[in-house]
Amino acid sequence: MALSPNILKHIRKVEPYVPGEQPQNRVVKLNTNENPYPPAPGVAEVLQSLDTDQFRLYPDPTAEVLVSALAENYGVSKEQVFVGVGSDDVLAMCFLTFFQSEMPILFPDITYSFYKVWANLYRIPYECPKLDDNFRIQKEDYYRSNGGIIFPNPNAPTAIYESLEFIEDILLHNQDVVVIVDEAYIDFAGEGKSALSLLGRYDNLLVVQTFSKARSMAGMRIGYAIGNPLLIRYLNDVKYSFNSYTMNQVSLACGVKALQDKEYFRHTVDTIMETREWAKAEFAKLGFHFTDASANFLFVTHPNYDANELFQVLKENDIYVRHWNSDRIAQYLRVTVGTREEMKHLFTFLKEYTLKGTGK
Amino acid sequence: MALSPNILKHIRKVEPYVPGEQPQNRVVKLNTNENPYPPAPGVAEVLQSLDTDQFRLYPDPTAEVLVSALAENYGVSKEQVFVGVGSDDVLAMCFLTFFQSEMPILFPDITYSFYKVWANLYRIPYECPKLDDNFRIQKEDYYRSNGGIIFPNPNAPTAIYESLEFIEDILLHNQDVVVIVDEAYIDFAGEGKSALSLLGRYDNLLVVQTFSKARSMAGMRIGYAIGNPLLIRYLNDVKYSFNSYTMNQVSLACGVKALQDKEYFRHTVDTIMETREWAKAEFAKLGFHFTDASANFLFVTHPNYDANELFQVLKENDIYVRHWNSDRIAQYLRVTVGTREEMKHLFTFLKEYTLKGTGK
Repeated sequence: MALSPNILKHIRKVEPYVPGEQPQNRVVKLNTNENPYPPAPGVAEVLQSLDTDQFRLYPDPTAEVLVSALAENYGVSKEQVFVGVGSDDVLAMCFLTFFQSEMPILFPDITYSFYKVWANLYRIPYECPKLDDNFRIQKEDYYRSNGGIIFPNPNAPTAIYESLEFIEDILLHNQDVVVIVDEAYIDFAGEGKSALSLLGRYDNLLVVQTFSKARSMAGMRIGYAIGNPLLIRYLNDVKYSFNSYTMNQVSLACGVKALQDKEYFRHTVDTIMETREWAKAEFAKLGFHFTDASANFLFVTHPNYDANELFQVLKENDIYVRHWNSDRIAQYLRVTVGTREEMKHLFTFLKEYTLKGTGK
Repeated sequence: MALSPNILKHIRKVEPYVPGEQPQNRVVKLNTNENPYPPAPGVAEVLQSLDTDQFRLYPDPTAEVLVSALAENYGVSKEQVFVGVGSDDVLAMCFLTFFQSEMPILFPDITYSFYKVWANLYRIPYECPKLDDNFRIQKEDYYRSNGGIIFPNPNAPTAIYESLEFIEDILLHNQDVVVIVDEAYIDFAGEGKSALSLLGRYDNLLVVQTFSKARSMAGMRIGYAIGNPLLIRYLNDVKYSFNSYTMNQVSLACGVKALQDKEYFRHTVDTIMETREWAKAEFAKLGFHFTDASANFLFVTHPNYDANELFQVLKENDIYVRHWNSDRIAQYLRVTVGTREEMKHLFTFLKEYTLKGTGK
């Protein structure tokens, strides 16, 4: 295992993103914001009906069936839709395509950790305006010259949703760069909350969403961007120059099917939102503080218990949540909203643990 | 659809690769080097047995099951295997990871057209030594200082295989850069032809292969690289910093299954090789000239017929082959080896056409 110094010198070295653990045994898994409910029942049917003999052929590089289904679902034209292998793929392509200025791009200091990773990977300069002490984005921080803007709404891991007026203010001050709103969790904020409704007025807005959360398809890797046809065209040019055939046949077929079942979608999303609101009350009873979560996860802290210790104790008891050892959020835990039963299991444990009073 | 000049200025503009047509109607499709036979029968079974409820969970980011199956299949360690969404994904990651020098990378002037696209996309300088008049790579062209080397073996679209001694000579003269042998078509060259056997002696060698050709799984997007564990680690670091979860659950399961059926694999590959050799004789009878193809396609030309005209006439008659309007190969057609029936259909047409004598 010996590589020459020249080879080692010219290898691109990056600090990779560390994904949440995927424990193999039977645990309460509230650590990667997955949906506790299975995908729409039609997905199983479509899988059974696939002709595997066709696997020998390349998939449609334009992903036409899925692009059309998304266009219809969101009332936009096909030319406004780009699809990729999860929203991570879509977002990485956006960074590569749109953030080519020498001005720094802007995103919050506390946000989806991949933004920094992509910026580093592609050598894109960036600055990270601080969230305020309540973990709110300060829109005025984005009123200055920059190379592009990206933020999730609701933000992660804070779970806080900012209004469409707020987003419009940022857009009004940034007509000269591409502004990306990463809406991985938007469906859990309720209906009519997406920045998609602003697309008609802002040609520089790009909205990115995913099948991994509200549509229960993390395992299938489907994400998409919706925006100005010209932005979508540039994005497709880069995608086709990277890999023409990224979406496999099964993802295309299952994705279309998942979109069709609007009733199931509404029902599972509503259930998760109800469970989340109930969980807020339970956390409050136990003395936890938390943000006003509008996602399928909560961001909680307890004045008497160290978050890292709590994280470890939960893990030892087969309850997985997420914790980051980074400055401003080191006392917080991110807890995915599971089924009511999973959450009850969590609260039963927390109740006993806090009764013991082994706090700070 | 109006974007500001600043936005337009800082968008990454690329000349995308144009994939071969995917005609929707019933045609003889010999234009994208797909396998005419379905994947191993076990693949259909594994698809039926998948639990779609699990689609709600992220796939294993390490692709452990598939990496292990590949390691076992090729008698290497798991640390030597990297997997991606088709070999295009794997190769693009390789360009991004290993070709970071300011010296130009080297690849043949006539070769897989994506190399140039990736080099442009990532702003990697490159030079393209010319194949000789018989479309052979001149190894001496690669005996000079460079930023890395990549070539397919067999080469595309020439279908010519170069020996392991030839590859070893290039490696001996290039210990100081990463040398990638792109073996998308290697199985059609016969057994024991892969540069995998050189891995033990050359730490800077990376061999890339795919499930899209010999394993009949173009529709599922699976590719892999095998090499020095250190190279694989750097590749994984970049992959994890781009998108942790690229391989979806279905690809992982189907990929493992396809690897297990060695008998089916051998049988279909042998059949395609037999059909290819028979097709060579048929082309010869009709006065075509061609390279000594070792891939699942042929590269043919006719002294009396213009290749582009022939390409068009074939297409009008629902027979799709591939043609490039580029200088040195403008008089050639790339013809994928289909089933014996498909090839007979092609030769019946060509026989009639050449009998009419409407040549140059």
